[in-house]
Amino acid sequence: MSTQNWWVNPAVPPSAAMELAATERQGQLTKPPGALGRLEHIAIALAAIQGQLKPQLEQIFIAVFAGDHGIVEEGISAFPQAVTVEMQRNFINGGAAISVLAKELGASLEVVNTGTHADPADLPGVVHAPIAQQTANFLLHAAMDEAQWQQALTLGQDSVARALEHKAQLYIGGEMGIGNTSAATAMLAALTGYSVADITGPGTGLNQQGVLHKVKILQQALDNHRAALNSAQAISRVVGGFEITALTGAYIAAAQAGMAVIVDGFICTAAAAAALQINPSIRPYLFFSHCSAEPGHRRVIQHLEVEPIVDLNLRLGEGSGAATVVPLLRLACALHNNMATFAEAAVSEKLEE
Amino acid sequence: MSTQNWWVNPAVPPSAAMELAATERQGQLTKPPGALGRLEHIAIALAAIQGQLKPQLEQIFIAVFAGDHGIVEEGISAFPQAVTVEMQRNFINGGAAISVLAKELGASLEVVNTGTHADPADLPGVVHAPIAQQTANFLLHAAMDEAQWQQALTLGQDSVARALEHKAQLYIGGEMGIGNTSAATAMLAALTGYSVADITGPGTGLNQQGVLHKVKILQQALDNHRAALNSAQAISRVVGGFEITALTGAYIAAAQAGMAVIVDGFICTAAAAAALQINPSIRPYLFFSHCSAEPGHRRVIQHLEVEPIVDLNLRLGEGSGAATVVPLLRLACALHNNMATFAEAAVSEKLEE
Repeated sequence: MSTQNWWVNPAVPPSAAMELAATERQGQLTKPPGALGRLEHIAIALAAIQGQLKPQLEQIFIAVFAGDHGIVEEGISAFPQAVTVEMQRNFINGGAAISVLAKELGASLEVVNTGTHADPADLPGVVHAPIAQQTANFLLHAAMDEAQWQQALTLGQDSVARALEHKAQLYIGGEMGIGNTSAATAMLAALTGYSVADITGPGTGLNQQGVLHKVKILQQALDNHRAALNSAQAISRVVGGFEITALTGAYIAAAQAGMAVIVDGFICTAAAAAALQINPSIRPYLFFSHCSAEPGHRRVIQHLEVEPIVDLNLRLGEGSGAATVVPLLRLACALHNNMATFAEAAVSEKLEE
Repeated sequence: MSTQNWWVNPAVPPSAAMELAATERQGQLTKPPGALGRLEHIAIALAAIQGQLKPQLEQIFIAVFAGDHGIVEEGISAFPQAVTVEMQRNFINGGAAISVLAKELGASLEVVNTGTHADPADLPGVVHAPIAQQTANFLLHAAMDEAQWQQALTLGQDSVARALEHKAQLYIGGEMGIGNTSAATAMLAALTGYSVADITGPGTGLNQQGVLHKVKILQQALDNHRAALNSAQAISRVVGGFEITALTGAYIAAAQAGMAVIVDGFICTAAAAAALQINPSIRPYLFFSHCSAEPGHRRVIQHLEVEPIVDLNLRLGEGSGAATVVPLLRLACALHNNMATFAEAAVSEKLEE
């Protein structure tokens, strides 16, 4: 095994013994067997990941990766590119959705600038790690070269290292990047085999004509790069983005560190789909938070055979959907950890059939 | 309008002006329009209900109504009737699911004994208001007489009065009663027109044979009472239960007091369905929390044209599903109240099309 290519090192499987013990505990709690449904499965999975019968989710670490995309030259976004930097300021100043959510959850929030068109140098509190001003326009060129791709992937690993310093028990990655639904859509088409038309949506707000133009551009880009798109790593590099690649790296590194991850919406799912193909061992560590309003998302999550926790018609990004489900995971743990058993509460069990 | 029949007094509609103002505010927040999906609708609805631009959900009041059912004589439940009292002790002692959830949410929790077969007299902290030891076996008799029905309904109104004393901004009703999925199923079949077979499920844990027996008993009961089941009030009285009727009364009283309500799963939906037919003006005050694993629930919520917030395969009752979604409502308010506007954050808006 190569230790240079850290991203292929396998994650240690969650504890099967603790999964069994947590499952047995669920069966003893004062409720009909299975009556807490999905909340039981979440608690059991977290117990196995954390290797302790009573899992804890006190410390949450949220990292939002911001990056710009050369593909916006093709007119595939409804918002100006300046927003990628303007929103970083909003994240730091507490006005963005993810900032509000992080505060409500008592979570640590960091913003990582992976490369933006506008100069973000005056933003205190942002981790400045620009790879370039933006990716190359992947209609004609590879979005990144190999060195840039590895650099972006490692930004995710670095973020996870900071999460571990914070003793985080849960990692959430978010993204901000004008044009990044286009990159995510191209990646997912190449990774899953769905046609571009099947999974292209309005992103932050294209009209129908805009969506048709986006389909045409993305299809052309995939045709142009067809020969090069022969692995998840290549797909991620050629039609991905700095911030999406950083997320892929973060998901892999978090799983390698034995930390649970909540995946956000459409763009994070593209990062996760690449991560799962590059390193399938990470699968048990990924919780998928929500089914996005972006129309391709439902198809992709079916393809990945994962089951999002909620379906609230969200399509914001920033990690907001992942943050939104944190209280459900915390309640799942509280129920699992703190409910009485039938024996403790002296409650009669089910009648013999 | 009769003031004696308090339950038909109309609720005041939520503020249309505040709904408009809250909708406008959502459009100014730093996110693509509509990108927070369902969370936007929840915040707007709460603003209209509370008549304030920035709605608050600090104080939550949870009442669990416990009651026993004569219909258990027909062998339609998998648990012994003693559990109805044993679980009340568990609620008070903090070991039940709803107790754990109430603690996590910082919510007030009360337990109301509406009438149980076993003697609950030694349970401090329970509101003792028994109507009888149990309802009559509705296979042959009306579950309640008119006086009992009004008494049960008023127990819900009394609970809401206590919630108002606690300055609650949100009311959750839960239920505990061995056999009460049978009463709820009979009510819902009569209220919605679905066949008993279409909406009967395992409750807390019947096997397939048990479900078939339950269908037969409930169908026979509805056939026996066909002539009497000519209004929602009559249906609630003849095949309902003390705790289900109390919930119906609580939902009506909460809406009349201008307080938002979260409806729990299958049994609470039966109480809500009766409440909505008895007093349609309460509809804007009811949030439906989850789609239960009880198979008839999905059909019934479609019939009611309501949209549950989550679908987590829960089937516990006690108000647990309603409590589980409280953090989502709170996050919806926090986002609505605390996000920056485009102007405040100096973020560029969408490009002209």
